[in-house]
This record gives sequence, C-alpha cells and structure tokens, in this order.
Amino acid sequence: MTPARRSLNEGGRVPALINIATRLRIDSVRATTAAGSGHPSTCCSAAEIVAALFFAEMRYDARDPQNPDNDRFVLSKGHAAPILYAAWAEAGFLKRDDLLNLRKLDSDLEGHPTPRLPFVDVATGSLGQGLCAGVGIALNARRIRSDYRTYVLLGDGESAEGSVWEAADVAGFHTLDSLCGITDVNAFGQSGPTQWQHDMEALAGRWRGFGWHTIVVDGHDLPAILDGLDKARQTIGRPTMILAKTLKGKGVSLMEGKGGWHGKPLKQGEELDKALAELQSQFVSEDGPAQRPERPKAAGRPAPKAGTVGPSAYKLGDSVATREAYGAAIARLAATDDRIVALDADVKNSTFSEKFEQQHPDRFYQSFIAEQVMIGAAMGLASRGAIPFPSTFAAFLSRAYDFIRMAAISNLNIKMAGSHAGVSIGEDGPSQMALEDLAMMRAEPNIAVLYPCDGVSTEKLVERMAYHPGPAYMRTSRPKTPVIYGPDEDFTVGGLKVVRQSSDDAATVVGGGVTVFEALKAYDELKKQGITIRVIDLYSLQPIDVATLIRCARETRGRVITVEDHYAGGGIGDAVASAIASEGFTVRRLAVGAIPRSGTPDQLLDHYGISARHIVAAVLSNSK
Amino acid sequence: MTPARRSLNEGGRVPALINIATRLRIDSVRATTAAGSGHPSTCCSAAEIVAALFFAEMRYDARDPQNPDNDRFVLSKGHAAPILYAAWAEAGFLKRDDLLNLRKLDSDLEGHPTPRLPFVDVATGSLGQGLCAGVGIALNARRIRSDYRTYVLLGDGESAEGSVWEAADVAGFHTLDSLCGITDVNAFGQSGPTQWQHDMEALAGRWRGFGWHTIVVDGHDLPAILDGLDKARQTIGRPTMILAKTLKGKGVSLMEGKGGWHGKPLKQGEELDKALAELQSQFVSEDGPAQRPERPKAAGRPAPKAGTVGPSAYKLGDSVATREAYGAAIARLAATDDRIVALDADVKNSTFSEKFEQQHPDRFYQSFIAEQVMIGAAMGLASRGAIPFPSTFAAFLSRAYDFIRMAAISNLNIKMAGSHAGVSIGEDGPSQMALEDLAMMRAEPNIAVLYPCDGVSTEKLVERMAYHPGPAYMRTSRPKTPVIYGPDEDFTVGGLKVVRQSSDDAATVVGGGVTVFEALKAYDELKKQGITIRVIDLYSLQPIDVATLIRCARETRGRVITVEDHYAGGGIGDAVASAIASEGFTVRRLAVGAIPRSGTPDQLLDHYGISARHIVAAVLSNSK
Repeated sequence: MTPARRSLNEGGRVPALINIATRLRIDSVRATTAAGSGHPSTCCSAAEIVAALFFAEMRYDARDPQNPDNDRFVLSKGHAAPILYAAWAEAGFLKRDDLLNLRKLDSDLEGHPTPRLPFVDVATGSLGQGLCAGVGIALNARRIRSDYRTYVLLGDGESAEGSVWEAADVAGFHTLDSLCGITDVNAFGQSGPTQWQHDMEALAGRWRGFGWHTIVVDGHDLPAILDGLDKARQTIGRPTMILAKTLKGKGVSLMEGKGGWHGKPLKQGEELDKALAELQSQFVSEDGPAQRPERPKAAGRPAPKAGTVGPSAYKLGDSVATREAYGAAIARLAATDDRIVALDADVKNSTFSEKFEQQHPDRFYQSFIAEQVMIGAAMGLASRGAIPFPSTFAAFLSRAYDFIRMAAISNLNIKMAGSHAGVSIGEDGPSQMALEDLAMMRAEPNIAVLYPCDGVSTEKLVERMAYHPGPAYMRTSRPKTPVIYGPDEDFTVGGLKVVRQSSDDAATVVGGGVTVFEALKAYDELKKQGITIRVIDLYSLQPIDVATLIRCARETRGRVITVEDHYAGGGIGDAVASAIASEGFTVRRLAVGAIPRSGTPDQLLDHYGISARHIVAAVLSNSK
Repeated sequence: MTPARRSLNEGGRVPALINIATRLRIDSVRATTAAGSGHPSTCCSAAEIVAALFFAEMRYDARDPQNPDNDRFVLSKGHAAPILYAAWAEAGFLKRDDLLNLRKLDSDLEGHPTPRLPFVDVATGSLGQGLCAGVGIALNARRIRSDYRTYVLLGDGESAEGSVWEAADVAGFHTLDSLCGITDVNAFGQSGPTQWQHDMEALAGRWRGFGWHTIVVDGHDLPAILDGLDKARQTIGRPTMILAKTLKGKGVSLMEGKGGWHGKPLKQGEELDKALAELQSQFVSEDGPAQRPERPKAAGRPAPKAGTVGPSAYKLGDSVATREAYGAAIARLAATDDRIVALDADVKNSTFSEKFEQQHPDRFYQSFIAEQVMIGAAMGLASRGAIPFPSTFAAFLSRAYDFIRMAAISNLNIKMAGSHAGVSIGEDGPSQMALEDLAMMRAEPNIAVLYPCDGVSTEKLVERMAYHPGPAYMRTSRPKTPVIYGPDEDFTVGGLKVVRQSSDDAATVVGGGVTVFEALKAYDELKKQGITIRVIDLYSLQPIDVATLIRCARETRGRVITVEDHYAGGGIGDAVASAIASEGFTVRRLAVGAIPRSGTPDQLLDHYGISARHIVAAVLSNSK
C-alpha cells in the first residue's frame, strides 16, 4: 500500500491542475472541430478527473509510456479519446499541434483509442470493456511484482453493460486494491439521459453491493477528486470506485449540462471562437507548478525467453481428448515460461485447464461463469506482457465475441481455447455445442485459427500459438481420439497434414478435429472398394496452406470435399473454397445443416451428415 | 396486483408439496441415470422451489402450456431440465414413463430445454440468459394486457454473468413487478464452490443495490418459499428476487451438499437403488391434496393479422440512408400490426429506431447500453407472440452473439437490425465498424440475412422480415445512398436484383449495401472503355438465390467478383462461392483484408480495396 502522498493544495497544485483541465478542454474542443466529428462534450465532463489522474496521481515516465512499472490508465469511455491525446500532449509525449490531426487516415489519433499509440493498452470504443481489461492489468502487477496501480475511467452510461459487473465481481474476488475505477457521471448517454441521471446513490448502491470501496465526489472539484484518489490508494483488500458527479460539456455554456450534444463538435467560426474565449477566461493564477510523481526508467528485468511444452506425453495409438492434451500442454509450457497464464470461467474440469491450476495456482485466474471478463482480463494481461490462455466451452466464447473483436483490433497476444466443439459432444444438446466458433474467429483477419485432431498436434500447436504474434484460437474436442502423429512431427501456424495419399486419389477430403477420423474411416471403407482418397487434416484454418490445398485439388482432378463438425457458414468449407478459388477449384461441403438436438456423438455425426458414411457417399457421387 | 392467495398450510398444502418435491427428485434421479448423463444434483437442490411454483403459486392450464394468460416459467439454469420435465409430468402434460427417454435422439426431452417442447419459451443452457428472456416475457404481459406473472429460476453460479445484471437493471427501470426471480443458491458451480458459497448477504446486497425487492429464504422450507412468493406477488413497482439457500443434491446423502457431483448421474444398481430408497423414505402423510390455482381456457383474443409498411416514402433519385429508411419503416409497419415492438440500446438516434418510439412509445423498450438484455428481452417477447425489432450498431450485436445463437436454437421470431456496417462509417474507427456481422449471422443456418442498399428495398424487406418465420437480421448502412428502385419493385427473403445486365457482360459483380454503388460506378467507368459488367445487388445473403447466381456466372463465363464492406471470412464472397460451387464456378473476393483505421468513408473504401477503382481493376485483370 502506498501512503497518503500529499496534503491538498500543497505547492499550488490545485490552481495548476485547474489550468491543466482548462487546457485539456481547449485541446479537445479544437481537435474535434478540426476533425468535423467526435465527442467534445464527454471530454469536457472528464477534464478535472483526467488532470488529477495524469498530473497529480499517476506515477509514470512520460517519455516511456510502456515502462512496465508505470501506473496504467484505461479510457473505457473511448469516445473521449481527444482528452486522452490532449493529456499525453500536456505530458510532453505528443506534440500539441498533432492533436489537430485527430481522425485523419494518416494519423494514429483515431476516433477511439487503439494500441497503435504506445500509451494505449487495449482498444476501447465498445463500451463496458475497460474495467475488464483493468482487472487483467491489475492481475499482471501481481504477476510481475510491480507496485503499479491501474486506473480506469468509465462513463456512467456504460455501467449498464453487464461486463462492467462481471469485472466488479472478479476484481472483488481477487481483492484487487491496486485497481481504481472512476465513473464520469455526466448523466447523459448517447440518445438521452441515462437511467440514473444524477442519482449518485443509485450507482453507489450497486458498487457497494458488489463489495467495492465506493466514494462519491463532485467531479469538477479538484481537491475532492484528489482526496478520493488518496483514499482509494490507502484502501486495502478491495478495489475502489470513485463516482464523480459531472456536467457533460462542462466549461462551455452552449453545451454544459444539456442534452443533444453527444458526439457533436462545435462549428468552426463563431461557435468555436465563443467557446474558446469562455474557456480561456477560466484560467486562474498559479501559486506554483503541478508536480506529478515521476517513475524512473524501468528497473532491469530479465528479457523473456520462449519456453517449450517439451517431449510429447503421447505415443502413437494412445487415446486422448484434445481438450485434455491442451490442458496438460499449457501446464507444461508454463513451467518453462512465466509469462504463460491461464484463465477459466468455471469449466476447468471440462477444458482441463485444471491441470494448469494444479501446477501454477498463482498464474491461474478464476473468472467464474463470466466469459466477458475472462477475455477482457486476458486482454489486459496480454497488453502488459503476459501470454494468457483463457478457455471455456467454445460455444460460450460467443458470449465474449465483442471482446474478441476488440482484441483483434488491438492485435493482442491472447491465446483462446474453446472445448466441446460441435455435435460430437453428444447428449448435452445444442446449447453446449459450438457450431459457429470457426466462423466467428475466422472472420477476424488477424486471429490464427487452429483445430488439432490428436494429442501430439495439440501439444505442438499450443507451443506454436503461444509464440505466434497476435491473437490465436484453438478449437478442442470432447471425445477421446487416437494419437495419429509421432512425437517428432512438426506443426506450424498455417500448416496442414496430408495423412493419406497416393498417386491415384479419387478425391481430396479435408477434415478437422473429429472429422479427420471420419475421413480415415471413409478411406478404409473406400479402399475395400478399390478407391483411394487423399485425406487432409486441416489443423490450421487461418492462416491456411493455400499451396498444398491447390496441389492436392489439382492432383485429385478438382474433387475436393470438406467435412466439419460446424455449421456450413464460415467454417472449413468456406476456408478451403476461398483458398483454392484462384485456380478455379470448388468444394463440396459436408457440414451440420440444421439446429441439432441431443443424442449420442455417433448418432449425431451420422444424423447431421458428417460421418464416414456420408463422406463415402460424397466421394462416390463426386467421382461419377 | 394479486392479493395474498393463501394462508400457509391451508388445506394440507405443505405435506402434499413435500411429496411432490420428493417425486420430482425421484424422477430426476431416475431419468439421468437412465440417460447415463445429466444433472441430478442441481435438480435436487431446486425440488421444493419447483414444487411450490408449479403446484401452489403459478396459474396455468396444464393441458395448454401456450395459453397466453398462463403464468410463465423460465428455467434459466437449463441443466436442471430433468426437474422441469418431471414437473410437467406431475402436472399431467407429459407421461411419467417418457421421462426415461431423456437425452435420446428421438425424444424432445433434450439435455437442456428447447422450445421443441410447448412449455419452453426460450432455449436455455447457456447460463445467465433466462432473466433477460423473463424481462421480455414480463413486458409482453403489458403489451397484451394480461395479468400473467413471470417466474425465472436461476442458479447462483450464473449470477456471475453480466447479462443477469443487465436484466436486473432493465427490469427495475421498467418497474416489472410481475417478474419474480428465484435463485437456487446451492453454493456450487461446475468446477467448485461459487465465489459466494452460502454468503446469502453477498448476493442479497447485489440485488438490493440494483433496486430489487430481495427476500432470503431456506430453499428447502416450503412454507418459507410460499411466503416469499406471496410477498413477491404483493410487491408493487419493482421486481422481486427470492434467494433460496439450498443444498446441491438435497435428499440423497451421497451427494447432498458435496462437491464433485456436478453433471454426474448416479450409477445404475446399488448407487441408484440406495438413493431411491432414501428418497422414498422422505414421503410424508398428506392432510389433503395440493390445489394449484388453475387458468381457464384462454379468453378469446382477435387473431393477429399481418400489417404493411404501406406505399414507399421514397422516389427514384432520393437520397436516404438505409438505417433511416429502416427506422421509418418499422414505425409504419407497427401502425398496422400491434405485435410489432422495438428495442434499443441507447443508439435510437443513430439506428433511427427513434422514429418508432415517437409514434409507438408504449411498444418501444429502452435497454440502455446493454445489448445482451436487449436481445434476450426480444427473445422473451417473441416467445409470447410479439414481433420484436431490436437494433443497435451492427458491431455491438457481437456483444449478444451467444443470445443470438440461442435465439437461433429456439427458432424465435426476432428481427434484428444492425446499423453502421463496415468501413463506410468513416472517422469513428474500427471499434464502431461492423466487419464480421454477416459472418456471425450467416453462420446460424436459420437466420435470414438481409442487406438492402436503398430506401425502397429497406422498406420492403422490413415488411418481409417481419413475417418471415424465424429469426432474421438486417444490416443497414450509415451513409446516405441514392434510391435506385421504383415503388413497385418486389423484394423477397432469398431474392436478389440484377441491376445491370447485357448479353455480353465481361463479369458478374456481386455487391451489397454501399458496394452496390461502387459496382455501379465501376459499371459506368468500364462502359466508357466499351466493357459491360453485370451488377447484382445481393440483398439477401441467406437464403440466397442460387439459381440466378449460377445463371449469371454461366452467362459471364464464370467470371464472378464479389465486393463487400466486411472482412473476407463468412461474408458475401463466401456466401456466393458456396452458392455457385456445385456448378464449378468460383469467386474473386474483394473485401476488407486488414484491421481498418479512422478516415473519411471514401478514403477508407478505397484504402481497403473495395471502391469502384478496385472493382474496375479486378474486372480488367479477370477478363485478361
């Protein structure tokens, strides 16, 4: 715990901060008018909060935003981006003139912040995500044994997002007293007043109910804000939420406290000039400069080194579910690289991430049944150098798709795993079956999408995905499958395996996961009839091995059949079709075509048209 | 408000209910053992709650589960399905013997409940969704002026899901006193104890913080449960949450209150026999029968009739954004069909659903910035006969993907609209751009996916989607576009328009939304060079007009180019490729290939390779 750091007004701090807040308003108003779009009013409500945080509270090296010990700031209300950029100009990292390039194609000062800027950890702009990332950033401080604190600025409107309360719950469970949220309660959402307006107690009761230290302040009263931050810093064992009552558009009488000013810049000319004159008049005389606590250059920490899963735990012919091989592999990898962490949403005994917890309990973060904060916290951890493996049933990753989308925009190093893919889970029925996860992940152009079929390929790909730059996803299966690869086989992100081939194959059959084994059964069946097929294990859907797929398509005279335990849209069929289209080859798709129901795995594979029998029929009809 | 309905123990009610609870336990235990999988322990914790609800509290016609005035029950903890089926057997709707067909392929008694069963309104099994549906079902009671009450049984573990708190917030805002939640606090999640275990105050504080009437009871004490339900029924102006402290596995000493029994049936033989004997011993002597309040056959309500958007508001050459045409169209349609309702997540002035609110404020439901409850409430409304149009930015529908997935499993009549598609929104940047929504929606095989490019087609397709059976999605665009269709053009779910064609077209260019106009610009450009192209407006991606696409591909010698304001995976390119593959035709795809940034719409369309210039280049390279 950091002790109280100041007496209020010490060294003329407050007048200097008042003037900083005024400059932040001026910069925000000017930049949005120059851009012709953006959100000056939501910047103005937060000016004192941002001034207090950046120029009295937070300890950071302004020349080195990535200093691992810097206090961190997440702008959850990402549409207030201009004031974030203004703060970094005020701190000397950005040039003030550059602020007028806001929202231009050749500027990194985008409409909402992204990690293209070195002081942005996670992209924001989809509301309700910042506090989830903050949870991960605060967990990371423990991981690297740093005393940095994490500050998240939320809007009041976004407090309606359930993900905020997932974060509230998990932060409390993990006693994250280094996490401090500040909610800018300006009483307006986009289209009208928020449901709470300025009823501070309605919001405070929610945070108290979730066990947070809760402080209500006037968000334009700098001593009150500083006092709140001081109290937050002295709070042990639980996170703090400061609820700051503010006026949207504060400082510019045209918009101050008024509706209809969301996302609306002031007009060039008289409207802007009047506002600027008004703001100029708000400068006060200073008793002395604001002196913010500085961070020294980062203390030397050993450079991270890639680890390894080590020798395979399986031999040919063993039987193991890929989900179980996944759990064992991340545990072994973590033993050799302490950046590897794992997150769960109360299904660790199904995804087998419990194997990780057993060996590395200090790097295993339980999110309970809350997938959004699991992914959001993983984003925060990844932004600070960890390599997080969040996992749950693949179906329930759909709960966090907006977070996954933002992780892709942020190009963060998160390594997601989804178990219980497809109808092959059996009796639990469609609510537990992931049948759109490949489509969901493959839609994001920078997510690597992996789908191993056996234990050995799972182990190898866990290691590959850990050190693949950017986001990655591994789909694992519920049933046990035979180990078909030897311990020395190599697997790469973007590769595939041709597991059966001859010089006279009637068709190329491309499967993934459990359908590789249906394809192998079909191979055996057809061989009895004197027909050979080429069988491909497409363990990497994105990137995808275009050259080998085209070669196989050519060598099997354009007869390509895909078979997948997934709906038809956006999965293996579409991926292969897209890969080979340039050479004029097309694909015959076997996929789950209807909403499935409960049954045994074998019954369902057959009922939904993706069993060996259907592959045989497709080959025979295809080769007519 | 319904008055207090009973004195406790009146007419021997409690002993009869104790025996019903015991029968429900016996049926749940037997069915899961017969199935060899499932969740007896979570059924046992809820037996008194279910007995009290179904046989003392709820008013319903057990022969007519769809009676519009029946009190409604949503099993949010869907893995307790066996006790739901047992209750309907006890009520006489199912045959008790059928319970032993649990989880079989030819039975509708699936592992988790789906609306294949007439007493299930929405599929559950993805936790945290039931209360959101309950909000919609309770709103529907107001819509149809029924006094039915809505009961939702939640698990304690699922209270970690943010969506529960979205529902809590919205239910409070709408003062839904006809909504009553009961949380079965059995202290165990799947993989271990919940974060709260039996700290009832930790949970109660959360619900009180959100403004709910909160009651804590012993969940195995029937008089206490009945008393709680009585108090809930008498509460005015706010919803009630009854927190019932229970033991997982209650009644079977082997599993009662113990960890490690999640999702685990008892073994056939001694284990089952012993449990059944133990349960049998819990029967008590009855003073009289349980007499539950009955509903009469439904009162006659006029049969619903389809409405119409009416004559087009636009003429050729007008300029209107499809999002604006959408808002106007749903408002006009609602004037002629009172089943049409609209839901917003605080962006009504961007999606233009504010036009609906202005004309039909009583059928417009504000969810504030909470997309999960918006879709969940729409699911509940749809399950009770409304035709809901929830809308937000298309990017933020990704927030609710798990709900959309479950709406598809439920085949509910929800009509989603997503605005601000693609890079053509411009300066706000990638967080606000939907570039994966088509993939996400098209992955679900029963969601109709529509993407009109002008005002007239938007109006017509709003009417079509309203009366299309099952879920549907409309993608709308931010920029104004010219009206290119006359008022008498017809548009169908599954159709397309060929907007330019000749007998000698060099290629077929398939666009959607804003890219139709890029294709038309390319047409004009190429025409100057003496080249004609066929231009298709693919306003329906799913279902898709296979025959016309194949004909056009054939007539343009297999040269097909798709262009879309969407990432490459799962969008228009994949949809067209899949449609024409059977005839050996392939597609050249122009799509957004990288994470975009801020810029003007025209800059971005060009920068990301989907402007007229790129289409021209593709046609020219394609026709070499």
